[in-house]
Amino acid sequence: MKTPAQPTVEPPVGISIEGRDGEARAGTLRTPHGSVPTPTFMPVGTKGTVKGLDRGELREIGAGVVLGNTYHLYFRPGAQIVREAGGLHGFTGWDGPMLTDSGGYQVFSLAKTREIGERGVRFASVYDGSKHEFTPERATRVQEDLGADIAMVLDECPPANASREYHAASLERTARWAERCRETHGRSDQALFGIVQGGLFPDLRKRSLRLTTELDFPGYAVGGLSVGESREEMLGTLGLTAPLLPPEKPRYFMGIGDPVGILEVIGLGVDMFDCVLPTRLARHGSALTVNGRVNLRNARFRRDFGPIDEECDCRTCAGYSRAYLAHLVREDELLGHRLVTLHNVRFVTKLCEEARRHILDRDFYGWAGWWTERYTGGSAGKVEKG
Amino acid sequence: MKTPAQPTVEPPVGISIEGRDGEARAGTLRTPHGSVPTPTFMPVGTKGTVKGLDRGELREIGAGVVLGNTYHLYFRPGAQIVREAGGLHGFTGWDGPMLTDSGGYQVFSLAKTREIGERGVRFASVYDGSKHEFTPERATRVQEDLGADIAMVLDECPPANASREYHAASLERTARWAERCRETHGRSDQALFGIVQGGLFPDLRKRSLRLTTELDFPGYAVGGLSVGESREEMLGTLGLTAPLLPPEKPRYFMGIGDPVGILEVIGLGVDMFDCVLPTRLARHGSALTVNGRVNLRNARFRRDFGPIDEECDCRTCAGYSRAYLAHLVREDELLGHRLVTLHNVRFVTKLCEEARRHILDRDFYGWAGWWTERYTGGSAGKVEKG
Ligand SMILES: [Zn+2]
Ligand SMILES: [Zn+2]
Repeated sequence: MKTPAQPTVEPPVGISIEGRDGEARAGTLRTPHGSVPTPTFMPVGTKGTVKGLDRGELREIGAGVVLGNTYHLYFRPGAQIVREAGGLHGFTGWDGPMLTDSGGYQVFSLAKTREIGERGVRFASVYDGSKHEFTPERATRVQEDLGADIAMVLDECPPANASREYHAASLERTARWAERCRETHGRSDQALFGIVQGGLFPDLRKRSLRLTTELDFPGYAVGGLSVGESREEMLGTLGLTAPLLPPEKPRYFMGIGDPVGILEVIGLGVDMFDCVLPTRLARHGSALTVNGRVNLRNARFRRDFGPIDEECDCRTCAGYSRAYLAHLVREDELLGHRLVTLHNVRFVTKLCEEARRHILDRDFYGWAGWWTERYTGGSAGKVEKG
Repeated sequence: MKTPAQPTVEPPVGISIEGRDGEARAGTLRTPHGSVPTPTFMPVGTKGTVKGLDRGELREIGAGVVLGNTYHLYFRPGAQIVREAGGLHGFTGWDGPMLTDSGGYQVFSLAKTREIGERGVRFASVYDGSKHEFTPERATRVQEDLGADIAMVLDECPPANASREYHAASLERTARWAERCRETHGRSDQALFGIVQGGLFPDLRKRSLRLTTELDFPGYAVGGLSVGESREEMLGTLGLTAPLLPPEKPRYFMGIGDPVGILEVIGLGVDMFDCVLPTRLARHGSALTVNGRVNLRNARFRRDFGPIDEECDCRTCAGYSRAYLAHLVREDELLGHRLVTLHNVRFVTKLCEEARRHILDRDFYGWAGWWTERYTGGSAGKVEKG
């Protein structure tokens, strides 16, 4: 068993919980670049930009933490250039909180060939096929160069169909990697979060959780879900894992962005989550509304002069009609991608703001059930009280 | 000879000239959707959007008149839908002045096959090959549906290599078409401008000018230039034509957008001009600076943490570095196209604002020469006092 590091100073990132309803938590995430009300959806700025949106718009739509992908930034433009620019904040101009993943997820999902060992993982770049290695030490140093408020330990995210034996061995190695990341990490203005793995096996989840929390990170992610398992398996596993995480630390669920899923994970006690879904949908002409998803390419929108969503407070809905957006989307106009992205991200940030209010009012689960029913037209599952 | 229509009311669009320096004019263009200081560069919103920019940004960068292309809007989304949306203003949300071309230029430049006759021109759609006909009457009615502040008569723009005989016959027909457009046009909140043709032949230009001005339009365009002739031929022909236009009416030069060319046509007495160049350059990663054009894909910008242009007052230059923009452009990120477009359009609108000031100060030609020298590094021609 490892001895936890003795913290001598307050960690740079923390959460204060201001209200609870069942497992659901409403709080405030404190970071070196400002505080964020939680639960919070974190828009993904893969390569240092949330597709089409500028920083003023991110601020305007209530974006809290913006996520960057270490894998992509390591190759393009390169961690060294980002460091010279003053980190991601200096490079991109976004002065709010940021989080970088470790790059591990892309290494495991994008690489055609990869070689994993105790030392780290070797892989070929998706950009040019060149050979690279991410070790826990390297993934940590690259993230220190990128300089986000929150960095993540390098973990292995095994495929959904990996065996129990594979998961069992992998989570042990992930825990050893996590310790090496912690030993390497030196930036006092950046928090390094641990990641719990263990697949869909309750006992392996518990084992991973124990090994990871013993390392006393300032925050924890639940990883290895949203990778192909069923929604029930995902929620079941999250429901077993989240309540065992230290209640005084932020909890991050990696990879959920559909409105119903957001309410479900909030209901299980998650504070932060990210997903490319709202931005990716926008690029395909799909917009989120309180009555479900609509595809603006549908012929019925060509003469629909109303807003995407009557209840939305975003600039797209205030100033542009479905007919105009449908035209832009059909013509593949930049402004179309941009305006629908603005709306979709605002849709989920607003959903989080509403969820927070209902947690504080202690009527979250009833409201979430009603909201989900309306969104899905009555066809979806319920948001269970955790 | 035709009898001019007797105007019973003030035309909806007019210009007041507030200062002159040689042939150069500084004025104010009055339209139903507001007034615009001239000379003015009109950004092209081909399909009802200036590539990537929203209406707030157009306002912010000092865009005056926004141009729409009748040909494209006729097909996508269709003039009827635009009319139902309340015209281009209602459809796009831009509440400033707008101008539509007649569609003729695209008919003649895009169509693989077209059949021109006294009645009009038949052509195949560039979108789906379907057969269409633009007559003067139809081009006028479509523009009435689109509802811009300024509509243009349907003209033939012969190819640069057309013979004198072709030009001579074509300009006569264009004048007959212009009269049919005027007879058709009925919107009192929209001005219909005439177009002078005649190729590079001074006597044909004069003939076209006389036929067109006899119809007493509220404004005139010089067409048929910037179609492949040399810069000297273009400026020579414009220099012969512009001074003969009625001084109390706005003068529009079709198709100039490079900074040096803008100063040249202003120096010859033009009030309004349009071009896709600043937006098209942006999409290719080229940015305008006071020291000339730079391509942000150039390796030297990868670590250049300064703004595109030190003198620029746009939001891109205020908040984003060349290194970040270079990264976005290389990665083909929407935000890159958008931010460079914002800068390029601001660059030319600011150039017009400066030109206006120097016309009012009666030192335009000296300043334009100095500006051009700096922009071209001394290699370009001079802006001649007209
Ligand atoms: Zn909206
Ligand atoms: Zn600029």
